[in-house]
Amino acid sequence: MDFISKRSKYAVNPLREDDGIARKLRSEGKNVISLNIGDPPRYFPTPKYMIDAFVEALKEGHTGYGQADGVLELREAVAVHYNRAYGSKMTENDVIITQGISEALMFINSALMNPGEYGVLFRPYYVQYISNLKLFGGNAIMCNYDEKNNWNVDTDDLETAIKKMKAAGKINKIKYLLLTNPNNPTGTVLERGILEKIVDIANNYGLFVISDEIYDEIIYNGARFTSVAEIAKGIPHAILNGASKNFDATGFRLGYMMIPEKDEKSVTLRNKLAEYAAVRLSSNVPAQYAMAKALGNAEAHSAAIAHMKTEIEDRVNHAVKLLGKNPYLRTIRPNGAFYIFSHIDLEALGFSTDKELTDTLLNEEYVQLVRGSGFGMPSYIRIVSLAPKDILDTAINKLNSFCERHAKKRG
Amino acid sequence: MDFISKRSKYAVNPLREDDGIARKLRSEGKNVISLNIGDPPRYFPTPKYMIDAFVEALKEGHTGYGQADGVLELREAVAVHYNRAYGSKMTENDVIITQGISEALMFINSALMNPGEYGVLFRPYYVQYISNLKLFGGNAIMCNYDEKNNWNVDTDDLETAIKKMKAAGKINKIKYLLLTNPNNPTGTVLERGILEKIVDIANNYGLFVISDEIYDEIIYNGARFTSVAEIAKGIPHAILNGASKNFDATGFRLGYMMIPEKDEKSVTLRNKLAEYAAVRLSSNVPAQYAMAKALGNAEAHSAAIAHMKTEIEDRVNHAVKLLGKNPYLRTIRPNGAFYIFSHIDLEALGFSTDKELTDTLLNEEYVQLVRGSGFGMPSYIRIVSLAPKDILDTAINKLNSFCERHAKKRG
Repeated sequence: MDFISKRSKYAVNPLREDDGIARKLRSEGKNVISLNIGDPPRYFPTPKYMIDAFVEALKEGHTGYGQADGVLELREAVAVHYNRAYGSKMTENDVIITQGISEALMFINSALMNPGEYGVLFRPYYVQYISNLKLFGGNAIMCNYDEKNNWNVDTDDLETAIKKMKAAGKINKIKYLLLTNPNNPTGTVLERGILEKIVDIANNYGLFVISDEIYDEIIYNGARFTSVAEIAKGIPHAILNGASKNFDATGFRLGYMMIPEKDEKSVTLRNKLAEYAAVRLSSNVPAQYAMAKALGNAEAHSAAIAHMKTEIEDRVNHAVKLLGKNPYLRTIRPNGAFYIFSHIDLEALGFSTDKELTDTLLNEEYVQLVRGSGFGMPSYIRIVSLAPKDILDTAINKLNSFCERHAKKRG
Repeated sequence: MDFISKRSKYAVNPLREDDGIARKLRSEGKNVISLNIGDPPRYFPTPKYMIDAFVEALKEGHTGYGQADGVLELREAVAVHYNRAYGSKMTENDVIITQGISEALMFINSALMNPGEYGVLFRPYYVQYISNLKLFGGNAIMCNYDEKNNWNVDTDDLETAIKKMKAAGKINKIKYLLLTNPNNPTGTVLERGILEKIVDIANNYGLFVISDEIYDEIIYNGARFTSVAEIAKGIPHAILNGASKNFDATGFRLGYMMIPEKDEKSVTLRNKLAEYAAVRLSSNVPAQYAMAKALGNAEAHSAAIAHMKTEIEDRVNHAVKLLGKNPYLRTIRPNGAFYIFSHIDLEALGFSTDKELTDTLLNEEYVQLVRGSGFGMPSYIRIVSLAPKDILDTAINKLNSFCERHAKKRG
């Protein structure tokens, strides 16, 4: 009898699996460049208005437990923020505050998944979607972001998969369809028409839509973002967002779920999620009051996000150009978030798996990336392009010469 | 087919189930006294050295993700703090930081419980123990804190229950034995001899011991606290603690797990818990740096905890005296934490359940307590005795006259 539970095999995070090796190399004096984690504050100090708001919250004594599903001030501010951006009509009652989207995903899967039930995911998927789904006994119906179509969703493929479930009498076993927009790891902003088609399909088959919009304000290269809040009117859905990326405060662990509709599924889920929140009593309280204040400071936020966006656009495009010099890579230019997801020719480089490649790269060149199989796609690598251009230069040049060397070695 | 999962029926928290009613009454202008949540900052402002440490952490820019299982500085400080207090020899590698003990309980149960396996709990238990155990498919082997023995653990009863499991060939299905010391809801500090006996039993049957010691510094009425760290030498165990109670900072959501031994169970569990931590990326980072600094300030902490302890002793003893005037209650005086758990004669008062009583009390007298059944013992009530004496006076006088009135009504 094993001491550790069977489900625990799904408690893994490919984004962080090499952190131990990186720490060891650093302790040996190696200059490791870690491009594995999408952590804006590492390169863009969290803006002063955010820090000031946090200090004020602490000094005002907001240090005890708060309402389990979030303090009123923040839930109100989140509703106002989304309504202003997307013309939705949410109220504070539609919002639940969580300790990052990480906790939201855990609660949602625990609240919905019985063993053997399904969530619709799109590959490449964000790593936590699959671990949380499987930890609670769920299975993925795996659809595709299509590289040939600039990583937009292949809606025919989606409809076929759903139809098949319907024909098998299993449509009610699908608990949700989970989108990331802009996407992680590809940086794709979904085209409005495609998003509308997805929502139509969800509506036709009665699927609950979850839209993870954590990068919704980091859009560039001329793209235009559409929120599910703008087009899902009347269809049961949840929107996930938070302070981490747009507000440059990953370490605050502050996420929010919005479930605005009043249909039976939405209401039942929202009430149940509030009970999950109550089980853990409260999320971080001074961070919540800080964020409520920060959301009220639209002017300071606009300036901060505008600066960060311009910088990110420049860094991502620079990195894409450098990666383009590498004949063993194939890269679609992103237009949102700050990730680049490149196909890599493992065979030409003499590696049998992407993990072997990323581990070897880390040990030989001290560059830490994430293997594509972590996102459901072996033969790819994810590069976080938040660092200044000189660091990106060093890292990508190392990657490129690493590839040359191994291709040559293989002959 | 239900939209909500079957396990979700366990996602409930009796401590907070009446929060909605209390909010509604307040919105109607009623002066509700809530004695349902053990939230020290509500009555003891979080000490200035804690706030200062937090502000400093923010100003130093600790706002990005941290190491998944906790920032090094805090893990080191926690080990030093415990070693100093209890003569243990922990290192930073034995410590994992979580978002409160709430998150630690979730991770532990997810990491250990397969459906149909067991945890040994003691009744009355802290509410989250049972919800987390059941959410992950576990069952409780329910032993007892014995009211006749001043709420100490009945070790004969414990040994009988374990023996029965052994005889049935199910001993390996017991994943842990979980103690709370000092106890919530009874405020009992376990006698050293009894704790040693429990550890002996665990050792004889190969059980992993978990000791929740979140109130270890709030000891009074002449009691002496013994940590499992002092007496479990060599036996696989985990200790849970955190900033919430001793450091008067519930809203920081900062817990720590210590798993110091090097046996196979301990090592496997510690590694797996670090992976669970990685799935959610990081816990609140500025709070961790703040706590690392605060733990280094032993002098300021000693002064703060000494003040709080003296006040709590006074308030608890005052409340016990007032409750003693109520002929429908039976109360053992606590000597740790700040909870009072009183037996209440439901029949004499004409209530069929403790929930009916606490709900009626809230609606008629605007006093919010928690029903004993939330802790596994109907016919009891839990009273949080953190408020100043004048508030406790008002609340308990209301409770007492409520009981008189209902006893009379019943006739």
